Amino acid sequence: MSKLLILGTLAFDAIETPFGKTDKILGGAATYISLAASQFNVDSGIVSIVGGDFPKSYLQKLNQKKIDTSGVEIVEDKKTFFWSGKYHNDLNVRDTLATELNVLADFKPKVPEHFLNPDFLMLGNLHPTVQMEVIQQIPIRPKLVVLDTMNFWMNNTWDELMEVIAKVDVITINDEEARQMSGEYSLVKAANKIHSLGPRYVVIKKGEHGALLFENGNAFFAPALPLEEVFDPTGAGDTFAGGFIGHMASTHDISYENMKRAVIAGSNLASFCVEKFGTERMEELTSEEVQDRLLQFKLLTQFDIELS
Amino acid sequence: MSKLLILGTLAFDAIETPFGKTDKILGGAATYISLAASQFNVDSGIVSIVGGDFPKSYLQKLNQKKIDTSGVEIVEDKKTFFWSGKYHNDLNVRDTLATELNVLADFKPKVPEHFLNPDFLMLGNLHPTVQMEVIQQIPIRPKLVVLDTMNFWMNNTWDELMEVIAKVDVITINDEEARQMSGEYSLVKAANKIHSLGPRYVVIKKGEHGALLFENGNAFFAPALPLEEVFDPTGAGDTFAGGFIGHMASTHDISYENMKRAVIAGSNLASFCVEKFGTERMEELTSEEVQDRLLQFKLLTQFDIELS
Repeated sequence: MSKLLILGTLAFDAIETPFGKTDKILGGAATYISLAASQFNVDSGIVSIVGGDFPKSYLQKLNQKKIDTSGVEIVEDKKTFFWSGKYHNDLNVRDTLATELNVLADFKPKVPEHFLNPDFLMLGNLHPTVQMEVIQQIPIRPKLVVLDTMNFWMNNTWDELMEVIAKVDVITINDEEARQMSGEYSLVKAANKIHSLGPRYVVIKKGEHGALLFENGNAFFAPALPLEEVFDPTGAGDTFAGGFIGHMASTHDISYENMKRAVIAGSNLASFCVEKFGTERMEELTSEEVQDRLLQFKLLTQFDIELS
Repeated sequence: MSKLLILGTLAFDAIETPFGKTDKILGGAATYISLAASQFNVDSGIVSIVGGDFPKSYLQKLNQKKIDTSGVEIVEDKKTFFWSGKYHNDLNVRDTLATELNVLADFKPKVPEHFLNPDFLMLGNLHPTVQMEVIQQIPIRPKLVVLDTMNFWMNNTWDELMEVIAKVDVITINDEEARQMSGEYSLVKAANKIHSLGPRYVVIKKGEHGALLFENGNAFFAPALPLEEVFDPTGAGDTFAGGFIGHMASTHDISYENMKRAVIAGSNLASFCVEKFGTERMEELTSEEVQDRLLQFKLLTQFDIELS
C-alpha cells in the first residue's frame, strides 16, 4: 500500500451560506484532503498542528478512517487555527470574516519517522516555507509531489513560493490565481507559464465550472457534476486535491492517462463535499455512493463520435 | 439529404474587442447558424429580411456554401438590421452600443414554397411572434424544432415567448437566461422548470465554460475548448446552434445519444468562430480542420475509469 503524507491545516471553521450558518466546526485543508484520500486504499498520515482546544474526538474521527495523526503537534497552551467566512448567493464568491492564525504562526512541521519515506506527498495550502521544510525532511524524493496554494502567498511570499513550486510535479490552483501567477488571461497561456516555473502538471480549478489538467501541450477537462443543491463549498478544493492524490497513490501509476482519472476522482468527491455543511458529507460517504456517482460522470462526459 | 430551414437575422455588426475593432461587417444569427450548418451534408435555407443596403456579395457568400437564400426578403428602400457591441477584457461581458431594428421592425417571415416541408427547423433568436409565424406556415411538423432566444424577449414578450416555447423540442439559452426564465439558481433545477414549459431537451450555454444538455433527468456536458486566444465571441452561440442542428439534420437521428454528439459538434465549431473577427474564420473553415479539432475534444474529455 502506498504511503501518502499530507501537509495541511487542521482548523475550526465557522461558515455562513445562504442556507444557514455553523458554529465552530472541524475544518482545514488536511482534514478535507485526508477524508477524501481515505476513500482509496492508501496509508495516509497528516503533518499539522493544533491547540489545546482541539477536541480529541476530531482526531479520533480521522483515525477511524485509518488516517495517521501522529504527525499532528498539539500545543496545549495555545489555540487552533480559526477561519470564518460567508458565502454569497453566487457561491463562487465569499468574504473572509476572520482568520486567526494562532498555533500556525510558529508552525515548524515535523514529519514522523514512519512517514519519512512517503511514496506520495500532498502539500496543502500553507506558507511556502512550511511546505519547503516538509520537502527537505524527506530524504528520498516521493514518486509524486502535489502542491496547492492560493493568492495570499502570491501576494506576500512570492520568492518563497517560487522556490517550493520549482520542486513539485503538480500544482493545483484556481483560475483567478493562475491568471495572477502568470499574468495571462488565457488559461492555456497561464498553464504554459506555470509549467516553466517547475511543475510538469498544472491543474486549474474552476469551482462549479470544473477543472483543467495541463501537461506539455495536452489538456484534459473534468466538469463539476451539475447538482440540484450546493449547500456549502468549503473544502471542495481540498477534497478535489485529496481525491486526486488518493487515486494516484492507490493506483501507483503516475502517467498522464492515470492523472485524467485522478482529476475525475477528485471532481467526483468534491461533488459530495458541497452537499452538506463542513465535513459532514465526507464523513458519512460510502464507497457505493462514490462508485454510483463515477457512473454519472461517465454519462455526463462520454460520447462516441466518428472521426473520418 | 435533410432539409434544414433556418429563421434568423442577417445583419451588419460593428464589433470592438480588446484586440481591435471592425466597421460594419456581415453578422446576424442566420448567417452564423447557416455557415456552421454548411459544414454538414444538409440542404439549408434561410428565412430572413434585409434592406437595399445589404451587399449582394454577402448573399453570394452564403450561396457559395450551398445555403439557399431565396427566403430572404429584400426591402430596397429600407436599411438592414444593425448591431454594435463592445467586449471587455473578460470576453463574457459585453455592452451593446447600438441596436437599429430597421427592416426587422415590420418583418413578416415568408417560408419559400420549396422549404415548406423541412425535416429540421432552427428558430434563431428573434421576436417570438416571428418564430411562431414560421412554425404556423409549415403544414407537417418537422422531426426536430430547435429554438434560441434571449433575455430581451423574456423581459418584453413573455407571453408570446411561452406560447412558442411550448411548441419546440429543444431550447438553447445561456446560463443567466435559464436562471431568469426559471427563477432557479441551480442549472439542474432551472432545466427541470424549463422542461415543464414544453421543450423535452434544454441546452444551457455557458460561453467559455461549455454547454449542458438536459433531458428527463439526464445531463451531458461539452466543455469549450481551452484556447490560447479568444479574439471575438460574436456569433459563438449561433455557431453552436448551427453545428448542433447541422449534426442532427445530417445524421437523421434525433436520439439523446446523437444529441450528445451534436452538442460536441456545436462546441467544436464555436471554438473556431471566436478565433477571428466576425464570420471570417467560419468562411474559410475546412472539414479537415473540423475533424482535427474533434479529436482534440475527444482527448480533452474522454477517460477510461473502472467501475467496480
